Amino acid sequence: MNEPIPLQVEDGELALLTDLYQLTMTQAYWKEAMQERATFSLFFRKMPPARRFMLACGQQHAAALLSRLRFGDTALERLAGTGLFDQGFLDWLGDWRFEGDIWTLAEGTPVFANEPLLEVDAPIAQAQLLESLVMNLVQLETVLASKAVRLVMAAQGRPVVDFGMRRMHGVDAAVRGVRAYRSAGLAGTSNVLGGLRHDLAINGTMAHSYILAHDDEREAFRAFARHYPGTTLLVDTHDTLEGVRKVIEIMREEPEVGVKAIRLDSGDLGELAKGARALLDEAGLEEITIVASSGLDEHQIATLLEDGAPIDAFGVGTQMGVSADAPVIDLSYKLVEYAGTPRVKHSPGKVNLPCRKQLYRRRDDRGRYVGDIIALRDEAVDAGEPLLRPLVRAGRLDDDEMARADEARERVADALERFPEDVRWLAEGESDYPVTLSPELERLQSKT
Amino acid sequence: MNEPIPLQVEDGELALLTDLYQLTMTQAYWKEAMQERATFSLFFRKMPPARRFMLACGQQHAAALLSRLRFGDTALERLAGTGLFDQGFLDWLGDWRFEGDIWTLAEGTPVFANEPLLEVDAPIAQAQLLESLVMNLVQLETVLASKAVRLVMAAQGRPVVDFGMRRMHGVDAAVRGVRAYRSAGLAGTSNVLGGLRHDLAINGTMAHSYILAHDDEREAFRAFARHYPGTTLLVDTHDTLEGVRKVIEIMREEPEVGVKAIRLDSGDLGELAKGARALLDEAGLEEITIVASSGLDEHQIATLLEDGAPIDAFGVGTQMGVSADAPVIDLSYKLVEYAGTPRVKHSPGKVNLPCRKQLYRRRDDRGRYVGDIIALRDEAVDAGEPLLRPLVRAGRLDDDEMARADEARERVADALERFPEDVRWLAEGESDYPVTLSPELERLQSKT
Repeated sequence: MNEPIPLQVEDGELALLTDLYQLTMTQAYWKEAMQERATFSLFFRKMPPARRFMLACGQQHAAALLSRLRFGDTALERLAGTGLFDQGFLDWLGDWRFEGDIWTLAEGTPVFANEPLLEVDAPIAQAQLLESLVMNLVQLETVLASKAVRLVMAAQGRPVVDFGMRRMHGVDAAVRGVRAYRSAGLAGTSNVLGGLRHDLAINGTMAHSYILAHDDEREAFRAFARHYPGTTLLVDTHDTLEGVRKVIEIMREEPEVGVKAIRLDSGDLGELAKGARALLDEAGLEEITIVASSGLDEHQIATLLEDGAPIDAFGVGTQMGVSADAPVIDLSYKLVEYAGTPRVKHSPGKVNLPCRKQLYRRRDDRGRYVGDIIALRDEAVDAGEPLLRPLVRAGRLDDDEMARADEARERVADALERFPEDVRWLAEGESDYPVTLSPELERLQSKT
Repeated sequence: MNEPIPLQVEDGELALLTDLYQLTMTQAYWKEAMQERATFSLFFRKMPPARRFMLACGQQHAAALLSRLRFGDTALERLAGTGLFDQGFLDWLGDWRFEGDIWTLAEGTPVFANEPLLEVDAPIAQAQLLESLVMNLVQLETVLASKAVRLVMAAQGRPVVDFGMRRMHGVDAAVRGVRAYRSAGLAGTSNVLGGLRHDLAINGTMAHSYILAHDDEREAFRAFARHYPGTTLLVDTHDTLEGVRKVIEIMREEPEVGVKAIRLDSGDLGELAKGARALLDEAGLEEITIVASSGLDEHQIATLLEDGAPIDAFGVGTQMGVSADAPVIDLSYKLVEYAGTPRVKHSPGKVNLPCRKQLYRRRDDRGRYVGDIIALRDEAVDAGEPLLRPLVRAGRLDDDEMARADEARERVADALERFPEDVRWLAEGESDYPVTLSPELERLQSKT
């Protein structure tokens, strides 16, 4: 073990990031010459109790990646080594290309239980192979964006900045998480690579270690403010209000350093913010803003603001980084149609909607959302624009459709305004927003 | 956006996977010519309520990766683009090498609150830069292994297999998670790449979609069993006990397919297992085992076995894949010493242990663990073998020490036996296992 194990998954290996049964089932389809078209639908059956809606995120990116999935030579060699696969099948895998269609919701679309986020139409041996990876990819961004948007809503227009890279589950979560945060409306991130790669502003303050490495807090403040005019100083290492007084002194002596903000990271944030605000205002430093952090979630942010805490921005990490109150969503990728006929597993107490589908979000004449309709894909439904759109057609990615992923942030902000208020509430509980089945789907479901 | 965003983080970019303030503070240290040696200690202050111990995992791998961290040309260009850094500093970063020491616990060491998992001794501008990445890397494996070992304990010797790749937070979590699962004692994984890369047996059964794609469940069973003699058949797609009867018929007609196991994935697993066992035994198929899955956690496994459910192996995913009841551990990487003097942040109600440290686990004469002592690194403590050992010395990885990471699985199994029983209990609550401070550390802590 002289070489550290790499963190990377190379393109040619990505196809192996799957559950073994996807490969054994695919070999079985190959042996049985089962080549009819299948439709698989990606959805979740139940909303987590701590959520009133989820933001469907990652599905466009996932579909784009999956449409280019290949089994590289190394991957094939490794599969051969398992002894489970015939050489003929491995050769077939080497030539494997996704040639089907993938329909997706646009990035950032709010979704509810049983609504399709993505559907794959392809010969069954192609569609089956995508299952595990598409679920892994979509879940991450969907779970993280759906948590992050709640912090954004709680902050009522004040900037929320991601400080959570260290708390996230590994490297891919930390990097792609920032993409989800961007969609959710965060103002920035401390995560350098994530921010650079996914076009979200990179922010940072300072750590307690910087203060502690200096013999004197005041000297640490002064040095850092000189290096970075317009910076944010962390004032709670020893005594928060004493720290604020030191910032005020430095601003008196060297106003040109233009300290922009102070950061509170421990203690009673509401009380300390009030105390700090009073000191700063008294010193005529109304322009210095207050950033608060320290294990905050949306409920704490809401409470702080209700209590009138003069906090101007929030840094959040631990709770958001793993979506601690709902770290997993029970996504399903289910066969719903094969060879032109509906397929459904009979699960007592569970909804299983057969056939390829479409999703409609009805608006009233003021543009407000009044209810969703889950329908058959080809059913005539007079309910506005269909939300599932073909991103991949016969294996080819539609670049115009893909470009819509970049509008996720605007899409989220626009959509949230249009929902009834109870969809946006932070408290646990379900909203009354109606999701119904179309007549044809209703009929087919009761039949199957 | 014609190219899908890559999932990979290349070696030269990995150094950018950090919080911005690590880089701005490091530039400040560079500008201030602060080059004294610092010690940072990685620990957590509080055990999650749902855990009685954590398995320290990932720290040896992380230390090995960090000892080779480099700022590649692309990384430096991207940093230059932020406008925050002087060219002189960027040149210095280009030559940056970690030249310090990293002490770590061996992979798989059980740990309790306030115990150091890893300590870095290096010039402050080197030690500071590692913070965010080491926390991200160690947290993932520690959180996942600490959950997985609970499922292993609950199963009381029966194999537990990871089915959770689709539920984990992204690609890195899915791949490195298997490493943590191996350490924790799982018997196998369905995750092909994870299993191949981290040397854990790859297992798989079949999905409901395979059954549904066939017109008849019996024909699906027969075809799959012929393709894969000795396989596991999923019997709950339509009616579980009917499914079992079909398996029995196939075994009567074609005993050479040698079905090895059936899998139950829904319904009342305890009752269905009893019913299935009775049918199989009646048919003389005592050798066919029963695998159960379906959102299982350690408490459900324990209850099933207490109730006498004849289940021989468990497939687990959703709850384990994100460690749903404790998805995050509040790791701290704190400056504890700089320029030879202790450094501590004053946090009311929080323990902050100054100085470089060592951890001892005392044994009685029968080898059972009787208590831990957190001591100063250089203090003479008569309590057996020190657990923190130098993995990286003056920037060089010790290959012999690194090889100990491969023994994590055996280390975990051995250690668990040695703890008092209440450390292994699954119920929420703290064990009585004592963790104390050495006399010198106690003295220093009360002083600082």
